[in-house]
Amino acid sequence: MSLLSIGTVAFDALETPYGKTDKIIGGSCTYIALSAAFFVPQVNVVAVVGDDFPEEYMDMLKSKNINLDGLQIKEGEKSFFWSGKYHNNMNDRDTLITELNVLADFQPAIPTSYQGCEYLMLGNLTPQVQIDAINGLAKRPKLVVMDTMNFWMNVAMDDLKKVLKQVDVLCINDEEARQLSEHYSLRVAAKRIMDMGPKTLIIKKGEHGALLFQENKMFYCPALPLEEVFDPTGAGDTFVGGFIGYLAKTDDISFDNMRKAVVHGSAMASFCVEKFGTERLLEITEEELAGRVNEFRELARF
Amino acid sequence: MSLLSIGTVAFDALETPYGKTDKIIGGSCTYIALSAAFFVPQVNVVAVVGDDFPEEYMDMLKSKNINLDGLQIKEGEKSFFWSGKYHNNMNDRDTLITELNVLADFQPAIPTSYQGCEYLMLGNLTPQVQIDAINGLAKRPKLVVMDTMNFWMNVAMDDLKKVLKQVDVLCINDEEARQLSEHYSLRVAAKRIMDMGPKTLIIKKGEHGALLFQENKMFYCPALPLEEVFDPTGAGDTFVGGFIGYLAKTDDISFDNMRKAVVHGSAMASFCVEKFGTERLLEITEEELAGRVNEFRELARF
Repeated sequence: MSLLSIGTVAFDALETPYGKTDKIIGGSCTYIALSAAFFVPQVNVVAVVGDDFPEEYMDMLKSKNINLDGLQIKEGEKSFFWSGKYHNNMNDRDTLITELNVLADFQPAIPTSYQGCEYLMLGNLTPQVQIDAINGLAKRPKLVVMDTMNFWMNVAMDDLKKVLKQVDVLCINDEEARQLSEHYSLRVAAKRIMDMGPKTLIIKKGEHGALLFQENKMFYCPALPLEEVFDPTGAGDTFVGGFIGYLAKTDDISFDNMRKAVVHGSAMASFCVEKFGTERLLEITEEELAGRVNEFRELARF
Repeated sequence: MSLLSIGTVAFDALETPYGKTDKIIGGSCTYIALSAAFFVPQVNVVAVVGDDFPEEYMDMLKSKNINLDGLQIKEGEKSFFWSGKYHNNMNDRDTLITELNVLADFQPAIPTSYQGCEYLMLGNLTPQVQIDAINGLAKRPKLVVMDTMNFWMNVAMDDLKKVLKQVDVLCINDEEARQLSEHYSLRVAAKRIMDMGPKTLIIKKGEHGALLFQENKMFYCPALPLEEVFDPTGAGDTFVGGFIGYLAKTDDISFDNMRKAVVHGSAMASFCVEKFGTERLLEITEEELAGRVNEFRELARF
């Protein structure tokens, strides 16, 4: 089933207790697409980069079944750049640099060949750009999944609430759920957020796993306890990319299948953190993923 | 199977965002025994109170299949008293008052009728008192489960390490596991702690559930997301009381049965937080517990 991913393709420079990188490929859409492309034959991307974005990164993405027809390359401009440093606990991080560059006036343009897409993933972006992206599609997709972050709740809550009315699944972390709902209990928060539009809500809790809510149904997927988290960058995007990729592959959006999709997303994320940036995502084999999903099954059974 | 619980029977005064109590019955042994007695016909208690401890509380405990032959009542002395105030998030609390009173020189004396017990629960106490309790038993129990807290890691680490060598299951929270092992990753922490003695480790993560480790095996039991946490006092003791109570009832200490025991402990704890103090524990019915365990099953299946 056709899958369209809109978000950022960018440069990251990362520092963790294990080491640091120069500018490497990053961005929400990069992680989402790499993760989703593990499940479907092609992921269509809409994003923007500057002319400083290396050909080799684009070739790498294409080699992973990622279609870049919708990747705008702005001549004379620079790509979005984020730099961050993780604390020893790997849960907290400081942003060192944010250079919006091409992202500052990004207008998503949907290529004609992308029209009719059935699964739409809106990565973290300005809510107005997310609205524009939905409006750029002639036919509403079967499923619209959206990620966002606390930053937009602080500076663009009205726009954010407009997008929420148009999406099927919202994926945010626990602190964001509490901020958006103004309630501490995640169960109450989930009810309030589902009243804002999304029929389904995923609350990511990092090392504590992820919660899936729909109507009165709940699923709690634990995170696999890992000996070592090398670099958490992109884990949330990898998670949601695996989630929508699995749904698109199986083309079944029932709650029971969403449970499985959350597990597959969690398994993908558990690989992502094992190396710097996207490195580990490029190596995963079918056998490794099946093995990891089995570890989740063993972890949760009783 | 005979179950012996050693710990504190005390007064608590609690304040949560929902209200406050005067001195009510509290203490690790109280919660453990009330929870475990839900599963076995009798829980034998070793603890100490002052002569200020009301007859009605003792009658209440006895009516719940709790044997108080091992409860020392110190004439002219006062019972242990703790007072605390919870923050709005219910995860953090401030201790307002700690009066050790009778606990300051507690020497556990095991009644002859308690000898031969098969399941021993060491509630949070001075490590030296926990050692004395084990040494007070002529025959080593089939299973020794122990709770402790960061306080003893700060002031009595050597004694704590001595007890650890003698117990089968240690039950602590995530921050305590990190402190004891000096490692942030709970998976590495678990290995290091199991090297200190306990073959099995439970790491309690509050609203994020509980992890069970043994050799290379892991089980992650989620916590049931609740609409409202009224009072978290005693939830950890209720959890471990349900854990050992379930094991004693089924008399099966395999890892697979420990998975079920963790779920039953979690279910008991999820009731405990619904009212002040021990109140909710006194009302639980078999049907309610079975229903709650089913909710855990539904929450975790995929």
